[in-house]
This record gives sequence, structure tokens and C-alpha cells, in this order.
Amino acid sequence: MSEVYATRRARLREHSNASGSATALVTRPANVRYLAGAAPQGSALLLGKREDFLVCAGPPDEQAGDGRPDGTLRLHLLEGTGDCAVAGAGLAAAQGADSLAVEEHHLTVARHRAIGSVAPGLRLTDVGGVVEQLRVIKDEEEISCLRIGAEIADQALGELLESILVGRTERHLALELERRLVDHGADGPAFATSVATGPHAGRRGHRPTDRRVEEGDFLSVCLGATYRGYRCEIGRTFVIGTSPADWQIELYDLVFAAQRAGRESLVPGAACRDVDRAARQVLDRAGYGAGLPALTGHGVGLEIDEDPQIAPAAMGKLDACVPVTVEPGVHLPGRGGVRIDDTLVVRPEADGGPELLTITTKELLAL
Amino acid sequence: MSEVYATRRARLREHSNASGSATALVTRPANVRYLAGAAPQGSALLLGKREDFLVCAGPPDEQAGDGRPDGTLRLHLLEGTGDCAVAGAGLAAAQGADSLAVEEHHLTVARHRAIGSVAPGLRLTDVGGVVEQLRVIKDEEEISCLRIGAEIADQALGELLESILVGRTERHLALELERRLVDHGADGPAFATSVATGPHAGRRGHRPTDRRVEEGDFLSVCLGATYRGYRCEIGRTFVIGTSPADWQIELYDLVFAAQRAGRESLVPGAACRDVDRAARQVLDRAGYGAGLPALTGHGVGLEIDEDPQIAPAAMGKLDACVPVTVEPGVHLPGRGGVRIDDTLVVRPEADGGPELLTITTKELLAL
Repeated sequence: MSEVYATRRARLREHSNASGSATALVTRPANVRYLAGAAPQGSALLLGKREDFLVCAGPPDEQAGDGRPDGTLRLHLLEGTGDCAVAGAGLAAAQGADSLAVEEHHLTVARHRAIGSVAPGLRLTDVGGVVEQLRVIKDEEEISCLRIGAEIADQALGELLESILVGRTERHLALELERRLVDHGADGPAFATSVATGPHAGRRGHRPTDRRVEEGDFLSVCLGATYRGYRCEIGRTFVIGTSPADWQIELYDLVFAAQRAGRESLVPGAACRDVDRAARQVLDRAGYGAGLPALTGHGVGLEIDEDPQIAPAAMGKLDACVPVTVEPGVHLPGRGGVRIDDTLVVRPEADGGPELLTITTKELLAL
Repeated sequence: MSEVYATRRARLREHSNASGSATALVTRPANVRYLAGAAPQGSALLLGKREDFLVCAGPPDEQAGDGRPDGTLRLHLLEGTGDCAVAGAGLAAAQGADSLAVEEHHLTVARHRAIGSVAPGLRLTDVGGVVEQLRVIKDEEEISCLRIGAEIADQALGELLESILVGRTERHLALELERRLVDHGADGPAFATSVATGPHAGRRGHRPTDRRVEEGDFLSVCLGATYRGYRCEIGRTFVIGTSPADWQIELYDLVFAAQRAGRESLVPGAACRDVDRAARQVLDRAGYGAGLPALTGHGVGLEIDEDPQIAPAAMGKLDACVPVTVEPGVHLPGRGGVRIDDTLVVRPEADGGPELLTITTKELLAL
């Protein structure tokens, strides 16, 4: 596994050499973990002139979810309090570096200035989103972590559906799902579990309230597991009671058709905006174009929302081995709505097309 | 309630006027909430030349924990995607401001630069930690939120102690505590609940693992509730089984004595470092000085770890109406240890001295 991280660091080094900095300081936690195998809280990774250092405030704790640092990295533990990024810049200067590429989209102005004072001879440049770009295409090891995470989320959701729902609050159902994720081996939830009932249903990112599930409600749920740092996402909408109303069936079928259109357009080489349009136009033609969320999906990996974005103004094309969500939804104010959300991996036609990681049924279940 | 927020903003305005900026842009979420009553995700507060704006990506959702924005503020909702801080700077420029104080300890270098490009005529200055300093002394409304949060945490902990613990994992116990916090009316946990068993016990900030509770273990638990945005903290250590070993009783008594010494030194006007020393020297004299955490306590409020710090190098003195934790602990590698943690409000002797918010017993319980 060490080689994987060393190879990733070599690719970053090429990029930063090309932009004129022989050394780079990585501070965004998901980027640190991607390159070092571990990202203890507050840590920073220095790609140094002679040696690479993982600078941490305390020893990494693999069991607690920090990950295991790549054995070819040197660990540098801070003594007492202090800022790992500033200490990393100090190490770079001590190695005789004359410039250092930093993540200006992650470092605060104050920390940037502190680095400048600790290493005044060091010219600071911006490494930009290079590591985020390296992270877009996943290797099979990474995809396998996402697959296991998706299985865990499917299991947690499946068990919830077997329990009694009417009368329970959104908050409780969300906590119950998170407990089940951990039961099935997740490091923890991939993001704050969303449970939305009745008029809340179908809202993207709805945060659970004390509203209780009632007969006749739409119930939409969105959850995900973190497994070895990798985060997946699944969203489903159900109807509570024996017979869904006609408007519920119609709206469900429509969102399902939009979501299928999005999924089916996931091929290597497809423009991200075309995937968005495939799903969006189904809803648009039915008259729901106005209130739609800004995006139809997004990449997942060490963060739950990473590149690429599946949105109308998104640039770029999909590659094979890029995991993304497809999650269109419609929310009717005061009435509720429907969201259906899967995590899939883009694969060539010859390999069977997009690989669906979240396999819970998308039939409209009445619970 | 509006007046409270308007008064707080007036105080910030005095500070930023004094430092030469008539306008200020606040982005740190707890600071936005303190000054605006609400802090929807990604929002920014502009103290403008003529009007104050809360800039948000979407409408605040009080039920979901955003808080309620002060009615005297103007809401500015972004259309589509975008950065609220950048939009706020645009509003400042449109009002004819010539300089804008920003939070350089919160803004990233990239966002700072984006503000510079959107409002090139605006001179950007640093407001520093002024809002954090305003937040240190709490009013009785704020203290009452902390008091309710502490009651909730006490209840959740009390219920856990009545259940069977042996054989359950740290992760499960932590999730169970978090569920109970929500049951009793918390917005959510104030921070990631820590449950530490056996050799883990007594470690500050231990993240729960799959280790199961065993007979003879020390069990240390640290949790807190968020109530209307305010966060409190309680930590206790127990022994599992009927009769604690002698070393457990001795270590417990020692940490208890240290914690009591810290609590008793909480008087208005006391130097923060003296409070730290009061607790620390008890442990130091018993030979445990070397491995102690860097701090003995810290302020709490809209964030779980805010000013003041109770630490050996801390500057400054305590004022009345400042809530702080007192949380010394000793961890013996391989054996475990003890932490005892209370949230208290500094009060003058005439008002009865420090007000203990977390009232769960600190007798050594064998469970």
C-alpha cells in the first residue's frame, strides 16, 4: 500500500515542480489522507526537498479513524501546542527550500501570514486544486471501499424499513440509521443523515426536526457510510400507509424517470453538464424546472462532495472509474416531494456500463 | 431579543471604527450567530455603512438549528451558487464603503483574494479576534441556554448509568448517549461524544473504538448537549465491577482533588494560569506532571472550545459570567486513567461563588 501513496506524492511533486516549487505543503484533510494514508486532526503533509513529513499534533490513531500513515513518510510530532502547517513550513526552510506551494483555498489568511513569518525566505506559491484533481479518478482499492460503504448503507436502510415508522420523529429515525451504520462496520456516517417527512420530503439536505411520521406522508431518507475514509450516499423516498395517492405515484414515477435518464448517461467521455441535462430535462418538461436544486449529482470519495459536479454550468467530462451520485428530486412547498439518489461508478460499455453501488430497490414502497 | 443582537453589532462597529474600517464582514459561523441570531451554512454578516445584511445561500431554517435571524437585519439570499462572503463584500462596495474589516483567521487566502477582485476599491483590514472577545462574558440568557444544555447532558449520562454496560463497545455507548441527548431536547451533541474504556480511559478527546467494556475497567465518558446553539461539557470516570482496585481509588481521589482545586480557584479576577496551576500542581506533586494535557479547561458558549484557555501560558484574568470547563485528568499508558470535567460559570463570592452547571455526582461509582 505504501507504493500507492508514494506514487500519488510523486504525481503531486511533478505538478508543483512544473509550477516552479520543489516543495509543497498540503493541509486540506482529505488531501493529506489521500497522499499520506492518514490525516490526524490538524496535520499537514510536507513534500520536502529531501524528505516527506507528516506533521501531527499527536500520534495518529488508526483505530479511531485517522488511517495508517504510509511507512515511507517521516512522522514529525509537534511538542506542546502549535500549528502543523507552520511547523511544516519551518521544516521546508530547514531543508533549504526556496519556495513552497500551499493550498490557498484551504489555508486561512492568518495561517498563511504565520507561515510567512516563520520562514521569511520561502516564496509561497499556490498549488491550487491539484490534489483534488488527482483524487477524481479512483483506483480499484478506493472503489472497493466505496462499495463496502454502500453495502453498509443499504443494510442500515433495509433494517429501518422493517421497523415501525409511524409516530417516530425525523431526528430519531436519523439517529437510528446512524447507529445501524456503525453496527454494520462503518467508521461513522458519511454526512449528517437526512430524514424528511410529509412537507419536508424531497428537500435536498433537509436537517431532521421533531416532526413525526404520519400516515400518507412521503418519507425521504438520505444517508451514507464512511468506510476506511471513503464516503458514499444513498437516498430513497417511500410512502407511509397502504395506498399512495395518485399525485404521489405520478411525482415518484417522474423523478424515477429523471434519475434513470441521469444514470443511463453516465459513460466515459460524457460531459458532466449533459448528464445533468439528461435528468433535469425530464423534470423541466413536466413543469418542475423552476425550483430544482443547483446540481443533479457530484463526485464522492474521501469527501462526500467532491469533483466532478453534475450541474448545468459544469465543465469537463466524465472518466471511467469516477464515482458520482445521481440525485434529482422535486420538492413541492407545503406538500413534500421525492428524491432518489444513487452512488455509481462510471465504467465503459464494454465493462457493463455504470456500476451501481447502492442497490436498495427504487420501486415505490408503501410502508 | 432583537436589541441584544443590535447591541452586540454596535459594539463590534465601535471596535472596527476605532481601527479605521466603517464596515466589517463576519464569516466565522459562531461569530455570525452571535451577532445575527442565526448562521445558516456558509452565511456571512455584513456590518454595512448604512445597513446590515445577513448574506445566505438559502433561507435560514430555525427548526433545523440555524437559529432565527434578528428582525432588524436585512436578509440577502444568493441566487444560484456563490460565496456569501464575496457577495457581502460586493454589497459593502455598492454602499460606497472604502474599507472593510474581515476575519483573517477564518477567511482562506483564496476567498480573501476573491473579495479583493470583486471589490477592488475596498481596502481590506483585519478585524482579528474582536468578536471572539465580545463573546467571552455571557449574558443571563446565554447562561440559561448553557444551564439547560448541562441538565440535558446530566440526564443522558444518568440514564446510561442505569443500563448494563459490560460487553458493549465504546462506539455504541457514545451513539446511545447522543441519542439520549436528542431525546431530552438537545439540538444535537455539542461535540463528538467520547467513551473510553480500560486502557483508553482518561485520555482527553479519545474517539470511541470497538473495544468492549470489561469488568475492572475504568470507564471515562465526556459528552455535551447543544441547546439553542450553546454547548456545554461534562466528563466523568467510573469503575466497572463491584470493588475498585486500590490504584483506581488512589488515582481517582487524586484527580478529584485536582479538579476541586481548579473549581475552587474560579473567582472573578483570578488569572487563568493560576486556575490551571491550582489543578495541575496537585497532579504534579503526585508525580504525574509529565504527561498532562496542555490545558486544564477552556471557555464554552457557541463553540465548545473558546476563550479563555485555562493553561500554563494563558494570559488574562477571569471575569464574572464567564463559563469554563475544569477538566484535569491523568492517563497511564496501558492502564487507563481518570478525567473529571465540569462546566461552571464564574460568579463573585457574594453570589455564592462558581455556579456548577453539570451536577452529576463526582463520587467514584462502581457500576
